[in-house]
Order: sequence, then C-alpha cells, then structure tokens
Amino acid sequence: MKSSNLNTPIKALIFDVFGTLVDWRTSVASHANTLLSAQHSIDWLAFADAWRDQYQPSMQKVRSGEIPFCSLDTLHLINLNRVNKDFSLKGIDENTKQELNLAWHRLNAWSDTLEGLTRLRERFVIAPCSNGNISLMIDLARHNRFHWDAILGSEIAGNYKPNPIVYRASVKALGLGPNEVMMVAAHTSDLKAAAEQGLKTAFIARPLEHGPKGSKNHPQAETQALTSVDYSATDLLDLTKQLNC
Amino acid sequence: MKSSNLNTPIKALIFDVFGTLVDWRTSVASHANTLLSAQHSIDWLAFADAWRDQYQPSMQKVRSGEIPFCSLDTLHLINLNRVNKDFSLKGIDENTKQELNLAWHRLNAWSDTLEGLTRLRERFVIAPCSNGNISLMIDLARHNRFHWDAILGSEIAGNYKPNPIVYRASVKALGLGPNEVMMVAAHTSDLKAAAEQGLKTAFIARPLEHGPKGSKNHPQAETQALTSVDYSATDLLDLTKQLNC
Repeated sequence: MKSSNLNTPIKALIFDVFGTLVDWRTSVASHANTLLSAQHSIDWLAFADAWRDQYQPSMQKVRSGEIPFCSLDTLHLINLNRVNKDFSLKGIDENTKQELNLAWHRLNAWSDTLEGLTRLRERFVIAPCSNGNISLMIDLARHNRFHWDAILGSEIAGNYKPNPIVYRASVKALGLGPNEVMMVAAHTSDLKAAAEQGLKTAFIARPLEHGPKGSKNHPQAETQALTSVDYSATDLLDLTKQLNC
Repeated sequence: MKSSNLNTPIKALIFDVFGTLVDWRTSVASHANTLLSAQHSIDWLAFADAWRDQYQPSMQKVRSGEIPFCSLDTLHLINLNRVNKDFSLKGIDENTKQELNLAWHRLNAWSDTLEGLTRLRERFVIAPCSNGNISLMIDLARHNRFHWDAILGSEIAGNYKPNPIVYRASVKALGLGPNEVMMVAAHTSDLKAAAEQGLKTAFIARPLEHGPKGSKNHPQAETQALTSVDYSATDLLDLTKQLNC
C-alpha cells in the first residue's frame, strides 16, 4: 500500500513504542501480579487495560494546556492511584507504587522487534518517537537490547503525540526534511498526525495489543491502517523485507 | 583524587565529546585537506585551530541572549565563513562549505574511547552531554561505533555548556539526582560548572587535544583539572579501572 511520493529516500525511521514494539498489556499485568498477588486477587490483565485506558485522557490535559508538560512517569503514577481506587486495591505503600510504576520501564518486546530493529538500523537511523520519557526509553532499550541512535519524542518536544510539535521536533533533531523520515506505528491516529507533518508512514499490525479477544474498551485491534500509508506490514520483519533490508 | 561525597552510587556517566572522546583537531584538518588542497595550500592544522577558536565566542552569543539558540551545525557554518576569510580561502561554493561543515560529524575517536565507553556502559547508563546537536552526535556515534543510551546536551536544553541548564536538563532526562550522575570531561570549565550543579566529576587528560606542541592560542593542554574533582584519569581505560569496571 503506497500512496505518497517515495522519490525522496528515507533516511531515518522513528517508532511508536507502546503497542508497536512492546507488549505493554501482558508485561504490566505480569509485573502487577508479581508485586501484588500475595495481598490482592484481581484480573491483572483488566488492571493493565484500565491503567492504559487512563493514558490518553491524562495526556489530553497536557495537550489542551490544562496542565503543564510533565513526564509520562508522572502521569502513569497519577493514573495508578485512580486505577487502584477503581479496583479497590488498598494499603499499597508508596515504595510499592513506585515499583509498580516502573512496570512501564520493563515491558517485553514482541518477538520480531529486536531482529527487525537491528536489521533496519543497518540502513536507517532509528529512534523512538514515543510519549514515554527519556529515562523510560533508556530502560526499555536496555531491557530489550534495542540500539537506538537517539531518543526522540515527547520529552524533547515538551508535549505529547499526536500534537504536531512532537513529530516536528523529532524531524528537526535528526537534521532531516520531514519526507526523509518515516513514522512507524500500529495506530492510525499516530500515522495520520505524522503524515500531516509531511513524514512518510508505515503501519505495523499488532493484533494482540489488546489481547487475543480484545479488551473491554478495545474489542478489536487495528489490523490495518484507517488512513493512507506508505507501507503496511504484518510485523517489523515484514517491513524489513518491503524496505529491502 | 577524590573530594566530594561518593556514598551515593553513580548510575550514569555523561560525557563531553569534542576533545574528551574525539580528536577534533587532526580530523578537521584531514577533512579540510582532502576537500580543499587541490585548490588551496595552507596549514590545515592551523585552519582547524582557528575554526575551533571561534567555538566559544559563537556560543557565548547564545548564552548571553544576544542571539536565540541555534544548533552547533549552524554556528560552525557561520564560523567557517569567518575562518575562510581569515585564511583568504576564496571561491569555495556552498556545497563544499556544507560538506566541510560535516567534518565535525566525522571526527575520529581517541584510541581508548571505544573500548572505554563499551566497558563503562556495562555498569552505567552513558550519554553525551555535548554542545553538539543531536544529529551531529548520531553521526559521530555511527562513525566511531559508540553505543549511547541517549543523546543529551545542548539541544535538549536549548542552551550551551557551561550554562547550568544544560547539566540540569541532562540529569532530569535521566530521571536521576545530580549526585547520581558524573560528568566526564577533559576541560576544567565543564567540570567546574557540572560540580556547581551537584554532579560528580571525572577529569580525563587529553594532552594531544591541541597537538603535540600546543596551538597558537592553546600552547598547553590541561594535563590535570584546575578544580577539585572526584576522579582524575589518564584516559578512559584508566577511568574504568578506577571505577572497577
């Protein structure tokens, strides 16, 4: 699926991370289960889903200007307090909350991610363009052995995707033109916003992002982009093939 | 040489790059010689020294607020025009100037740098805290096979060292306290400014930064820090030994 002008060579790939490269759902559920199951017995996948459901509304407060920019670690912790309340998880001390919040620093990659990124890096500069803060991205990279060229995204822009400034700041940091950079993501909203700033786009299908049967608020994963994209791939290895890496 | 409280473990090392990790002088001279010697015959080491001599004055204009923040690539290009004039280098077209400016993206590392960084990364998060822009740091890392965890420094801070904001922004991005981060540099001014922000400090001697006999405006390299530091090393491998890496 190719729609926009591909004559200008792509020099860098920037990646959405949560859902596109790493499986946040089972990783967060597993981490929460390990930390809390001695005291609490709940559906930890539903807990992970509920925590993630607070993600967009909390960032919207920054995007709208209601609150100043703060790191995703900070938003995750605020959201955790709310989710703990909703699941009636009481008596969790501050240290445990901080430890639980670090679940987002230790998410496991999808099985194709490491090999895909490694092969793509042989031909392209690669960087995350994530809403996660820099220290979170550092920890995720170390946990999964990603070798990024730089860490771009929300923290260098002082705002959250899909605000246009995040894509523009990432392109500027790379010293490239927008059409020399391709945004790679499993979510239409991210790709649509990147394309509006002139970036090329690649959709990666992640049918298991919300679990094999979908979750309460996400009964179906996006199996294809709902916008025109330059590439559409079943996973990162498929993308490497399409890009002749 | 240890002076400040070392009880808090160091978790991350941030590095000055020009002079501390890479030999800008012979690299720039060699690049300029390759590009221009067919048309011009001058002392290319003196040319590199003169270009570098414009570095601090040009950044001072940003630090003082005289001009808004712009990338080091931009400052290097402005400075190049001035140096070309001083050396009576005429008739250099814009493409060649742009290519010459990229000399700063292709500087060669000192012989101990790669092994030193690789060993230090086994125990510490490592990142440049340089006045070079992100794309320059990406290119230098690829040229020399450095594996950074992130790229910090002037561009994420919107100002130039030794302005305090550059050290503070780098520490904040790491999600650490200042005394969990150590600044590694071959220059007293950098280490003094970092220490004033609460960072730990390591001096690396680079006796050849300005050539074996020194340069016109730098007759002697700094062979030891002229301020109190936590570590003082003859090179990066010596630092790894002192840190038990």
